[in-house]
Amino acid sequence: MSERNLTLLTDLYELTMMQGYFHAKDANETVIFDAFYRTNPDGNGFAITAGLEQVVEYIENLHFDKEDIDYLRTTGLFGEDFLEYLSTFKFTGDIYAIPEGTVVFPREPLVKVIAPIMQAQLVETAILNIINHQSLIATKTSRIVHAARGDGVMEFGLRRAQGPDAGIYGARAAMIAGCIGTSNVLCGQMFDVPVKGTHAHSWIMSFPDELTAFRTYARLYPTACILLVDTYDTLNSGIPHAIQVFKEMRAEGIPLTFYGIRMDSGDLAYLSKEAKKMLDAEGFTDAVISASNDLDETLITSLKNQGATINSWGVGTNLITSKDCPSFGGVYKLAAIMDKKTGKFIPKIKLSENEEKITNPGNKTTYRIYGKDSHKVIADIICLVGETFNEDEPLLLFDPIATWKKTLLAPGTYTMRELPVQVFKDGECVYHSPKVMDIQKYCKEELNTLWDETKRLVNPHEVHVDLSKPLWDMKHALLDKYHFE
Amino acid sequence: MSERNLTLLTDLYELTMMQGYFHAKDANETVIFDAFYRTNPDGNGFAITAGLEQVVEYIENLHFDKEDIDYLRTTGLFGEDFLEYLSTFKFTGDIYAIPEGTVVFPREPLVKVIAPIMQAQLVETAILNIINHQSLIATKTSRIVHAARGDGVMEFGLRRAQGPDAGIYGARAAMIAGCIGTSNVLCGQMFDVPVKGTHAHSWIMSFPDELTAFRTYARLYPTACILLVDTYDTLNSGIPHAIQVFKEMRAEGIPLTFYGIRMDSGDLAYLSKEAKKMLDAEGFTDAVISASNDLDETLITSLKNQGATINSWGVGTNLITSKDCPSFGGVYKLAAIMDKKTGKFIPKIKLSENEEKITNPGNKTTYRIYGKDSHKVIADIICLVGETFNEDEPLLLFDPIATWKKTLLAPGTYTMRELPVQVFKDGECVYHSPKVMDIQKYCKEELNTLWDETKRLVNPHEVHVDLSKPLWDMKHALLDKYHFE
Repeated sequence: MSERNLTLLTDLYELTMMQGYFHAKDANETVIFDAFYRTNPDGNGFAITAGLEQVVEYIENLHFDKEDIDYLRTTGLFGEDFLEYLSTFKFTGDIYAIPEGTVVFPREPLVKVIAPIMQAQLVETAILNIINHQSLIATKTSRIVHAARGDGVMEFGLRRAQGPDAGIYGARAAMIAGCIGTSNVLCGQMFDVPVKGTHAHSWIMSFPDELTAFRTYARLYPTACILLVDTYDTLNSGIPHAIQVFKEMRAEGIPLTFYGIRMDSGDLAYLSKEAKKMLDAEGFTDAVISASNDLDETLITSLKNQGATINSWGVGTNLITSKDCPSFGGVYKLAAIMDKKTGKFIPKIKLSENEEKITNPGNKTTYRIYGKDSHKVIADIICLVGETFNEDEPLLLFDPIATWKKTLLAPGTYTMRELPVQVFKDGECVYHSPKVMDIQKYCKEELNTLWDETKRLVNPHEVHVDLSKPLWDMKHALLDKYHFE
Repeated sequence: MSERNLTLLTDLYELTMMQGYFHAKDANETVIFDAFYRTNPDGNGFAITAGLEQVVEYIENLHFDKEDIDYLRTTGLFGEDFLEYLSTFKFTGDIYAIPEGTVVFPREPLVKVIAPIMQAQLVETAILNIINHQSLIATKTSRIVHAARGDGVMEFGLRRAQGPDAGIYGARAAMIAGCIGTSNVLCGQMFDVPVKGTHAHSWIMSFPDELTAFRTYARLYPTACILLVDTYDTLNSGIPHAIQVFKEMRAEGIPLTFYGIRMDSGDLAYLSKEAKKMLDAEGFTDAVISASNDLDETLITSLKNQGATINSWGVGTNLITSKDCPSFGGVYKLAAIMDKKTGKFIPKIKLSENEEKITNPGNKTTYRIYGKDSHKVIADIICLVGETFNEDEPLLLFDPIATWKKTLLAPGTYTMRELPVQVFKDGECVYHSPKVMDIQKYCKEELNTLWDETKRLVNPHEVHVDLSKPLWDMKHALLDKYHFE
C-alpha cells in the first residue's frame, strides 16, 4: 500500500465540505474527531482493533498529485484557490490510537484525530475503511481460532475475498488474531508471515491416477506432505493411497516430520474419525488431519463436539468476508472544536433519538482496569484527557445509563492501563508499527486478560465500558443545554 | 491497479504445484480451466459478470520481480532451477471471457483459460478474486437498482468496504450495474464515472447553528444543493430551515435546478411523506428527497410499498459488502488436457457426490437463445467449441438432469448469440475493455432481455442452462467410465 496514492480514496463530500471550510470558516480551526464503533460484530463479547499500520502509511502519503488536482477540476465543483491550496496540502495534526491487536469494546475511540478541520474531515473515509475492514476480520478470526481450541487455523480465503486488498489486509488481520499461516503469498511477502498450502484437486486430476499424483508430490515436498484425499473417493481411494505413500516414505527412510491428509468435502466428522482409525492402524498416529470446506466457528465447534479428529483447519470464505457480519460499523464523529481565543476545546455532541447513537463529547482517552490478582479485565473507563487516577484509592464505577448500578473497587485491588498511544504529533509520525507476528503475540496476551465468559461465542458476558464522572457530567450538561434551548 | 505487481497475489499451492509440474511433468502441457459459479447470490435469478478489465491488467502485468524471487527463495520451498524459470515467466496462453455487464447464469464459464498448465494454475486465485468480487457487487447492485423502480441509486459505501480495493472496484461494479454515481472520488478518477455527495452531520455541527450551516452550503453549491436535515430534529428544525434557505435562494433569483433534502435516520416512510407535504406547501414540488441509512433492496421495496416519497437513494454498507451474501462462490476447474500426440483435448471431469459439484468437461462455449419477437431470453446452452447451430432449423432443448423435460423451438422463432469473446491470444491481449459508463449502458440492455419474472427479487423464475447433446454425451460417457473403472 505504501506505493499507492490513496489521497482521493475519500467520499466526495469530504472535499466539498473542505472547500466549504476553506471559504466560509477559518480553515485552521482545530477540531477533534473520534473513530469508534457501537456494537461488537457477530454478537461477540469484544473486538480486536487492527489496521493502524495502514492508517499511518495513508496519512504519511497524503498529498494531491497534479493528476489529482486536474481530475478534481474536471468535476466543476472546485475553485482554483481551493485547488491551489490542495496542491500544497499536508497533514499537520496529532493522532492517537489504540495499538493493533488490542481487545476493544464499543464506544472507545480507536483513533482520535486532532487537526485543522479541513484535514480532519478529509481523512475520515480512509481511516474508517481501513480500521473497519481489518478490525472486522481480526475479530472474526479470533472467534474461529477460539473455536479450534488450540488447533492451528490457516487463512485460505483469497479467492473469495472482496478484491485484492481484502485478501491481502484480511490475511494480515487474520494473522494478528491468531492464524498460524495464510495461503496468500503476497501477504506473506509484505508482512513476513508464514505462508501455507499444498495442492488442489487439479494436481490430482492432471496425473493419470491419484497414487502417481501423491507419490510425485511426496517426492517433491517430503517435509510438508499433506495429501488431498477427496478428489475421487476419500475412504476407498484417497486415504488408502495416502497411507501407501507414507509407508513407501517410511520404507525408504524418509523422515515423516510433517505429513498427513486434507479433506475438502463430505461429512468431515465421520470421514475424519475413519481416517484417524485407518492412519493409526498403520502406525501413522501423528499424521495431520486437515479439513477445509466452508468452515466457520460454528461448524468447527460442531465438529469438535462430534468428536471429529481434525487437528488443522483451513478457513476461507467465511473468515475473509466475515460472512455472518461483513461490516464493522465504525463511525467518525466530531467531539470538540477549539476556541481560538482560549485555546480550549469546546465539547460537541451529536444528538439522536437512539441513546446508542448519542456521541461522547470532548477530548477523551480510555483506561483499562484489571484485577490486581487475576490480571483479568474488570471494566474500561472512558474519561477526559488530564483526569488522573490513583490505584491506591478506591474507584467508583457506575453504568452511564442505569447510573444506580455502581461498583466500588477497593484500593490496591486493581491496576489501570491507558490504551491509546500517540501516533502523529504535528503531522510527524512518532509511532513505530510492530511486525505482524509481534502483534499476534501481543494479541494472544490481550485475549488472556479476558474471562472465558467474555470469549464465549454465543451470549458472551459483557465487559462494561463506563464514563468517568467528569465526562458523564459534561455529556449530560450538553444534553440538558440542547433540551432547554 | 495497473501499477501494482499482483503476481504474488496467489495461493501458495499454485506455486508449489507449478514447481511440481516443472519437475515432474512436461511443463508445456496445455490445459483448459473454466471459471464459473454454481448458485446465483442472494437467491437472485441471474448474476452480472464484472471485473474483466482488471483481469486483463493482471494478466498483462504478470511477472516475477527480483524481489518476488528473493522472497520465494526465503520460504525454502523452491529450487533455483524453478526460481530461474519464474524470473522469465510470461503468460502465453489464450483467454476467452463473457464481457462485463452481461447477464449470466450458473455453470457458464465466465472465464476460460487455455494455457500451459503451469501458467493456467498460477492465475487461478487472482482471476477468482477479481471476478468473484466485482460480479458479486454488480449483482447485488442490480437488485437494489431494481427495487428503486427508476429512482437514482448512489453508491456511498467506501467507509464500510472491506479495504481500499473493495471500495474502489466495488464502486466500479456498482456503476456497471446501474448506480447513477458514487461518493468514491478515487473510483471517479480511475474510471471516469460520476461522483456524488454533499455534506455530513459534522458540517452542520461545526457551525453555530443549522441555518447558518445550510445557508453557507447553499451559497457555495447552489446548483447541487441537497441539505442534510436530521442532525438535530428533522421535522421541527431541519426541514423548516432547508425550506427557509430555498425560499431565500428563490427570492434572490438563484435558479433552483438541483436541490432538496437528505435524511439519514428516523422513520423514513413517515418523515419523507411529511417532508413532501412541507416542501409542496411552499411550492418546492420538484425538490429531491434523498434517503440513506442502512438501506438495501428489501428496505427500499418496503418504503416504496408504504408510499414513501423518497426519490433518490444513497446505499452504503449493504451494497458495498453485499451484506446478505458477501461471497460469490466462483470456482476454477480443470476441463481438459491436450494430448500432445494428437493435439486434441482430452476432456476431464471432477466427480462429486453432489450432482451440482460435478464439472462439465471439455472445451466449451455458451450460447444465449432469444425469442425472435420478444427479444427476451429463452434459455442458455453450453456446448462444445465447434458445434454449429442454424436458427432456420428446429432446436431441441432438454434439461441436463431431468432429461425427459424437453422444449422444441420451431425454426425462425429464435435467435442465438455466443456469449464469450476472445481476450488473450498467445499471451497477447486482443480485447479492448469498454469504458465503465458504456458497460453500464450495455448492462441495462442486457437486463431488458430478461422477463420481469426473472428479475423478481424473491423466488425468481429460473432461466434454464442446458447442455448440448454432444456435451451431455461426453459428460455421461466420462461418468460411466469412472463408475465402471
